[in-house]
Amino acid sequence: MEQNEVTVQVPMNIALVKYWGKRDEQLILPLNDSISLTVDKLTAETTVRMIEGVGKNTVEINGKNVELSSNKRYQTVFDEALRLQRKRKELSDSNGNSTSISHYFQVISTTNFPVAAGLASSAAGFAAIALGIQRLLNLDDSQANRLARIGSGSACRSMFGGLVHWKKGEKEDGSDCVAVKTCDSNWPDLYCIILVFNDGRKKVGSSEGMRRTRETSTLLQHRIESIVPQRIDEIKKAYSSRNFENLAKVIMADSNQFHAVCLDTSPPIRYLNDASWHLIELVEKFNEEQGIRAAYTFDAGPNACVIVQKKDAKQFIDAVLKTIDIPEDDLKLAGEELSETFRPSEEAPIVKCSKLVISPMGGGPQE
Amino acid sequence: MEQNEVTVQVPMNIALVKYWGKRDEQLILPLNDSISLTVDKLTAETTVRMIEGVGKNTVEINGKNVELSSNKRYQTVFDEALRLQRKRKELSDSNGNSTSISHYFQVISTTNFPVAAGLASSAAGFAAIALGIQRLLNLDDSQANRLARIGSGSACRSMFGGLVHWKKGEKEDGSDCVAVKTCDSNWPDLYCIILVFNDGRKKVGSSEGMRRTRETSTLLQHRIESIVPQRIDEIKKAYSSRNFENLAKVIMADSNQFHAVCLDTSPPIRYLNDASWHLIELVEKFNEEQGIRAAYTFDAGPNACVIVQKKDAKQFIDAVLKTIDIPEDDLKLAGEELSETFRPSEEAPIVKCSKLVISPMGGGPQE
Repeated sequence: MEQNEVTVQVPMNIALVKYWGKRDEQLILPLNDSISLTVDKLTAETTVRMIEGVGKNTVEINGKNVELSSNKRYQTVFDEALRLQRKRKELSDSNGNSTSISHYFQVISTTNFPVAAGLASSAAGFAAIALGIQRLLNLDDSQANRLARIGSGSACRSMFGGLVHWKKGEKEDGSDCVAVKTCDSNWPDLYCIILVFNDGRKKVGSSEGMRRTRETSTLLQHRIESIVPQRIDEIKKAYSSRNFENLAKVIMADSNQFHAVCLDTSPPIRYLNDASWHLIELVEKFNEEQGIRAAYTFDAGPNACVIVQKKDAKQFIDAVLKTIDIPEDDLKLAGEELSETFRPSEEAPIVKCSKLVISPMGGGPQE
Repeated sequence: MEQNEVTVQVPMNIALVKYWGKRDEQLILPLNDSISLTVDKLTAETTVRMIEGVGKNTVEINGKNVELSSNKRYQTVFDEALRLQRKRKELSDSNGNSTSISHYFQVISTTNFPVAAGLASSAAGFAAIALGIQRLLNLDDSQANRLARIGSGSACRSMFGGLVHWKKGEKEDGSDCVAVKTCDSNWPDLYCIILVFNDGRKKVGSSEGMRRTRETSTLLQHRIESIVPQRIDEIKKAYSSRNFENLAKVIMADSNQFHAVCLDTSPPIRYLNDASWHLIELVEKFNEEQGIRAAYTFDAGPNACVIVQKKDAKQFIDAVLKTIDIPEDDLKLAGEELSETFRPSEEAPIVKCSKLVISPMGGGPQE
């Protein structure tokens, strides 16, 4: 019985131009391109083992076994991995017969962040599984990309460091739907400040939400065809020329537009809550007074990710502390990251944030 | 000294397909058509007097004098009225010389609803002034329409009963930008239930909001060109065939899309609050269980207008009472209107409504 094992650490990513809507539900092919940066400090550390012989696939996340019969995506990824392996063996096997040995996967994953915090931890998790399987089965980058994507669409954007462009592709089989690192040089000065406002309210899941928007929004198609391609170019230009102001403008406009098409859905979908709006207004005020030095972006939930250059992080957090209550331990960690000291305001906070994280952006997976 | 006096009573109106964005700020020419119904019970009763000789224009609303130097729109309306009068006199005067007598207007207006409640009371007010001046100066309908519009854009939709279509027109001088009654027969069975959730939060004024959306939204143009014309047709068809389900679908979709383009604005504009969203979810649930029998619509504020057929009003208000706190006096008035009895729920309400009004829709101005 042969046994292989790989351990990888993969960061979650946050889209600067958002993915919303699938052109193929099975293959998870998106209706539009998206572009993202990783959040280096929020990672899934994952060990993938492959076992030949008799057994069954198992997935353990943060010490809990995942019920695979009700989480079909893991099985889809494992099946596809074996299909890719068989295909390669057939190619290298002169008589064309495939071997018939059974394989099983064991996945043990630990995230350094609550899975339920609404911070796209599944993207990091599936990217880690895909990278682990890539090492074990010697898959190429595009095959690993495909594995990540069919696990969780945006997971394919966590496969690389730097600015990552997930191209929607045109082909029905999804072979040209891949995520690629898109600028030569990174921008290590970019930091994100994540504020978790999760209010426990039941939200519409991304898959269900995307389906509903695709079927009912009369603005989505225009966004896909006429807005997103231009914004992808603008982000690339701003990132490669390190023009923060232009980068920030597109990031905020695209976050707002994503939530706008959610609202243009029947029934309408709402992910932003009062705390999210408080933060939006805070950033707008900060930028009005200081020049554009912070950019908010919200995924399918109320939690904010604010992107700043490292030099502005201290000032922005100070502005946040005037009206937002931050857990003391998180404030201490943020201070250590920035070599600064933060003190909560003595005024009564308006909004409560349950977790703050500050992290550099754009790092890649690590083995 | 000649003195004339006219008193008119004009209802406010609520758009079923929303007006948002001006193609001309001075003439108040809209970027897109809109279509509306009046709310019969919310009216501005207005007396307009015209005085020849020396004096000054005065406007009194609900017993308070309006400072005309900081409310330029009244002056614009009065000036335009005199210009139209001069033009007519010139036409009828064989030697082409205009008379040089000065005219002044006195306006005394009483609304049966708080002006500050965010319920477009200015629309009813300016429509009343325009109708009053029309009678005094023998203006034609299109001239009166123009007077109302340059006072407050959507005021021109309060000039008629029935379904009113405000056409954006194409001409630069606004001569083809008029509101017209658009279906032969009315639908007297339609009622609206207005819930005031005004939370006193400072909102972005309509004029400022429209300007910002026109300048920054990348979805607005698509809405204007490709969505609104179709929706205007759908509303007309649904109204004239009395197809409530189709009417309701368009009403709700268009309210959502109007708020979506507000969100697609930089900085984003938010008019809906938690109470508004609570009501949206309540209507969606009601329709899911009962078939589509209620339609919400929100103007540039948090207050809801729910359109129902009279036969469903009782059941809808009962559903509202399960989670929304309604002032007792308003509930009594609603009961009288419907010949029904309403009782507040004994459960703790989730949302507080500061005023409820139930009213038939589609009535016109009265002299």
